[in-house]
Amino acid sequence: MATSEKGLIELCHGNGGRLMHQLIEDIIRPALANPMLDTKLDAVQLPVLEGPPVITTDGFTVQPLEFPGGDIGSLAVHGTINDLAVSGAVPLYLTLNLFIEEGFEISRLARLMKSLGEAAEAAGVVVVAGDTKVLPRGQCSGLYLATTGIGILSPGTNLSMDFVQSGDKVLISGPVGDHGTAVMLAREQFGLAGTLLSDSANVLPLTRALQDLGGVRFMRDPTRGGLATVACELCRATGLGINLWQETIPVSEQVRGVCELLGYDPYYLACEGRVMAVVSEHDALLVLKRWQALPAGSQAAIVGEIQSSHSQVVLTTDYGGERILEELEDDPLPRIC
Amino acid sequence: MATSEKGLIELCHGNGGRLMHQLIEDIIRPALANPMLDTKLDAVQLPVLEGPPVITTDGFTVQPLEFPGGDIGSLAVHGTINDLAVSGAVPLYLTLNLFIEEGFEISRLARLMKSLGEAAEAAGVVVVAGDTKVLPRGQCSGLYLATTGIGILSPGTNLSMDFVQSGDKVLISGPVGDHGTAVMLAREQFGLAGTLLSDSANVLPLTRALQDLGGVRFMRDPTRGGLATVACELCRATGLGINLWQETIPVSEQVRGVCELLGYDPYYLACEGRVMAVVSEHDALLVLKRWQALPAGSQAAIVGEIQSSHSQVVLTTDYGGERILEELEDDPLPRIC
Repeated sequence: MATSEKGLIELCHGNGGRLMHQLIEDIIRPALANPMLDTKLDAVQLPVLEGPPVITTDGFTVQPLEFPGGDIGSLAVHGTINDLAVSGAVPLYLTLNLFIEEGFEISRLARLMKSLGEAAEAAGVVVVAGDTKVLPRGQCSGLYLATTGIGILSPGTNLSMDFVQSGDKVLISGPVGDHGTAVMLAREQFGLAGTLLSDSANVLPLTRALQDLGGVRFMRDPTRGGLATVACELCRATGLGINLWQETIPVSEQVRGVCELLGYDPYYLACEGRVMAVVSEHDALLVLKRWQALPAGSQAAIVGEIQSSHSQVVLTTDYGGERILEELEDDPLPRIC
Repeated sequence: MATSEKGLIELCHGNGGRLMHQLIEDIIRPALANPMLDTKLDAVQLPVLEGPPVITTDGFTVQPLEFPGGDIGSLAVHGTINDLAVSGAVPLYLTLNLFIEEGFEISRLARLMKSLGEAAEAAGVVVVAGDTKVLPRGQCSGLYLATTGIGILSPGTNLSMDFVQSGDKVLISGPVGDHGTAVMLAREQFGLAGTLLSDSANVLPLTRALQDLGGVRFMRDPTRGGLATVACELCRATGLGINLWQETIPVSEQVRGVCELLGYDPYYLACEGRVMAVVSEHDALLVLKRWQALPAGSQAAIVGEIQSSHSQVVLTTDYGGERILEELEDDPLPRIC
């Protein structure tokens, strides 16, 4: 029929009728193919969970929708399952909300859904429910997604900021700021180009590798606001301080270069496939070794330690000076997630 | 500080930093107050579920954001928990995604979150996780929400379109089209006014009342696309036909009037607090009696029956004629959810 021939999303693709069903059946469902996604149902029944459920949710509004190393589809999987992984959970299920702008190319939607489906499959999670809304032209910048993740807590897991103690070490699983920088480079507005890829990835292999270590106090994926923001949150929640050592924090050459050009601080730029962990002094080297043995952790490093003598994030610079990393104020960081 | 004094959402309210935390702590969290919403966490651990989990998700883009009888906040609760209720589940938890436009009034956000929190509390569900994104001015029409609902299947429940048989009766718990009409009236573009309220409500009392009845085959809340769309879906999925009787389908005077004026068909207009049920002939009167005994079901009616002689939705009109209710095609119904 007319609307589909044009290959563009029309308002009627969101009206609950035939064209919406066709869009879901032809484009969305095949990309997410799994037997539990029954589009005849308003709600899906899942098998009984073999452990305490862990839930998280995330919205995705990244611009551009496709960037080196990923796109909003794969990001909507990684962003959500990583929140489960760093909480010590095994991600099992995802739900998916689409907000699509009228006039969006259906072929592009298909490509992004394929990417989402592949990322989900690679991570062993299934998309079990979804909802599609179409917004009038000019009331959405192409596509926004929201995903909710459901997992179960791994047995014996007990992670919390509350367990963090003075003397604990801070580790990061790889270079920081790759995602934020790759997304910025993908925007024409900066007039820059590069070969840098987003680090967008499933961090479950990194968190699983530490599952039996009692010395792991707390993990977090440093997304919006980056490593510095997670460190600030930790200080605020615990009343403890964090010393970070600039010389040990892995930052790629390209991220460093872009940050110098544009005046960004890499410690505030988003990662989408890194884990920050706070680990007892006793287990810190073991965590480092396990991470470095994994492809995703080859550049892992011990980057700082917890202090009780102050309650700020203090960066010891390469030149031996000290700089306080404050919480982000009114800096509207680019839309990187 | 400057940005909050203006009372408007700024891009920095979405950057993961101090102002975002302040927004969440001052405006969103108090409205949703519950002990499980720990904003320090990336994911929340829930108590072990005492039954098979049932999951659903919905996006909300209604315009205007506030309408007689409800707003996007309460709607985001009802829309999602009702999908669980009609699946035979008891809703327990919600997650919440906010997509807010730069420049949105913080006082309005607070009001809508309060409405959401109150609707959740009234329905006995808790908002356990959330995420906030801020979109640049002009890339969102104020506020979009997405909610994901988690519930557990009520013991002994077994509902499916697959159980629907020829001879079964079709029931509706109350007048159709109130929500869709109330939202249209709330838009200045139509130049109409009225006292009609949206039917937006938690349908759990209606579904719970039928919990022990084996003759209840299938339930659905007729939202986007209305009663006619649910009926069409049922025909498509089962290969059976549905006869609906115009004289028995409850439609309020105001809905009828507006539909005549604007050329809408009330059977395609959204309800947000009604249940359509397909029930064995044996139990149909019992369902009717139980519904009519409830405040929300006082106007419940038996409105049709399942037929094996055809596979369409056929409306017998008040004048004795017959009209086929087709699936919605390219009719871009107003943004009512």
